[in-house]
Amino acid sequence: MSILVVGSVAFDSVQTPFGRVEEVLGGSGTYFSTSASFFADINLVAVVGEDFPQRHLDFLRARNVNLEGVKVVPGETFRWKGEYGYDLNEAKTLDTRLNVFENFKPILPESYRDADFVFLGNIDPELQSQVLDQVRHPELVVCDTMNFWISGRREALLKTLTRVDILMINEAEARQLAEEANLVKAAQSILSMGPKTVVIKRGEYGALMFSEHTIFAAPAYPLETVFDPTGAGDTFAGGFMGYLAANRNFGDGSIRQAIIFGSVMASFVVENFSLDRLRDLEYRDIEERFRRFKLLTEFEGL
Amino acid sequence: MSILVVGSVAFDSVQTPFGRVEEVLGGSGTYFSTSASFFADINLVAVVGEDFPQRHLDFLRARNVNLEGVKVVPGETFRWKGEYGYDLNEAKTLDTRLNVFENFKPILPESYRDADFVFLGNIDPELQSQVLDQVRHPELVVCDTMNFWISGRREALLKTLTRVDILMINEAEARQLAEEANLVKAAQSILSMGPKTVVIKRGEYGALMFSEHTIFAAPAYPLETVFDPTGAGDTFAGGFMGYLAANRNFGDGSIRQAIIFGSVMASFVVENFSLDRLRDLEYRDIEERFRRFKLLTEFEGL
Repeated sequence: MSILVVGSVAFDSVQTPFGRVEEVLGGSGTYFSTSASFFADINLVAVVGEDFPQRHLDFLRARNVNLEGVKVVPGETFRWKGEYGYDLNEAKTLDTRLNVFENFKPILPESYRDADFVFLGNIDPELQSQVLDQVRHPELVVCDTMNFWISGRREALLKTLTRVDILMINEAEARQLAEEANLVKAAQSILSMGPKTVVIKRGEYGALMFSEHTIFAAPAYPLETVFDPTGAGDTFAGGFMGYLAANRNFGDGSIRQAIIFGSVMASFVVENFSLDRLRDLEYRDIEERFRRFKLLTEFEGL
Repeated sequence: MSILVVGSVAFDSVQTPFGRVEEVLGGSGTYFSTSASFFADINLVAVVGEDFPQRHLDFLRARNVNLEGVKVVPGETFRWKGEYGYDLNEAKTLDTRLNVFENFKPILPESYRDADFVFLGNIDPELQSQVLDQVRHPELVVCDTMNFWISGRREALLKTLTRVDILMINEAEARQLAEEANLVKAAQSILSMGPKTVVIKRGEYGALMFSEHTIFAAPAYPLETVFDPTGAGDTFAGGFMGYLAANRNFGDGSIRQAIIFGSVMASFVVENFSLDRLRDLEYRDIEERFRRFKLLTEFEGL
């Protein structure tokens, strides 16, 4: 099984209270693909500039990420610059340069069009729809979005959502999308927009999953070292969808486990800058932390 | 088994986006006692003014709260006035009148001094110590505190903490007490101050429990109706300690269940103003919501 992913591949410059890095590998497509690659093969759709170094492409390829859909075009790669204070929950964006990403039109190679699993990273909802137009009969479509599209491209986003199975969104964005302060009511409202399941990401507080008949709450893994939260949401989505694709079961029990796998992957990626913590990660490390999650949340019933 | 509680009994005036109440029954001792009374008998130590109505005393007595240690003195009862915005996580205090509480000296009736279980509500740590001085050989001491005492009475608080088994504290206060931004490290630092267990309350995000060898994370129950969060922390503490006293087991498994019972009680109390939601609550409602908590957090292991 393989997952079709559309998202950004970028250079990030990040400052946190614990250090600073310049122009390291980043982007939603990169974080998602690397994380999901521990569970499934990945077909990535993205664009980079001619300045994008071969070693980053080699890294992704070595992780079984198919780069046939990654276009290299004249110009510079997407760049993001941000910083975090001691409250690591929110990034302050210092600079965004879309560069080659500005005119990104996702064209799927023929070999991608039979994808069973599609992850629509956080890009213009119009482009997300165009990706879906090119996929013949996807089995599961998972979508991310953000405040920028909710306020600026609401109509296009609502159209995309009618074609989405699972929406992943953060807490403030869920409230914004539903125009409702209460999170339970906001989730119910989002479920009426199309998705059968909504996963609400709460950063260091974990995640909530809502579907028609069930709610699941997962904590984040309490870490002694949180170095850089950049990419945590996409890494979460990668572990989540990677597990669903590998397990090929979209029932409630499987989605719950997928949320834990997503949380596990996110808990690793924040332990170092960029994707560095995932570079030497092994599948047994993932399983070990999954077991710790079980111990973290377990209590005896009545 | 019975629990000795020291805390405030007060009149609260509260405004939330959903309504407003004037001079309703409140106070940390009241919330704790009412909540814990579903599990155990309560011996309350507090002070009220001559304006305190008989019907509130009757309510507590009907819930098996022993009021022998509640002194009625000349003057007015403690009054608190606060409001909440749509973000119900934090109260804005509009007015605090300590009144008779200002000169409160907790004197324990002889019948209270053999208490096995002691809950030190959020009062001056000096007074908390004085309460412990009067208890012969407590089996379990649970303590609450707040930013005001952490900054203003640090030395006295540190002295009290050496005599405490379980500290309940909110997230920001845990960071403040430990002078450490990372919550895991903050908890470890607090454990070195005396308590064997620290329970960190995170409002709508639930609670984390740390002891030497274990961490437990519990979500808050996702509610469609959050009416008034006043007293949620004390109600949580009441359910938590009530269950521990009833179960008479202070092992890790029992503490985990106690945290869920605390969360259950808090989830009820916020559904209405004052203690109103607890007035007609029955034990089977508590068990029913405990079971829902189990479903909320459950996932299959590997």
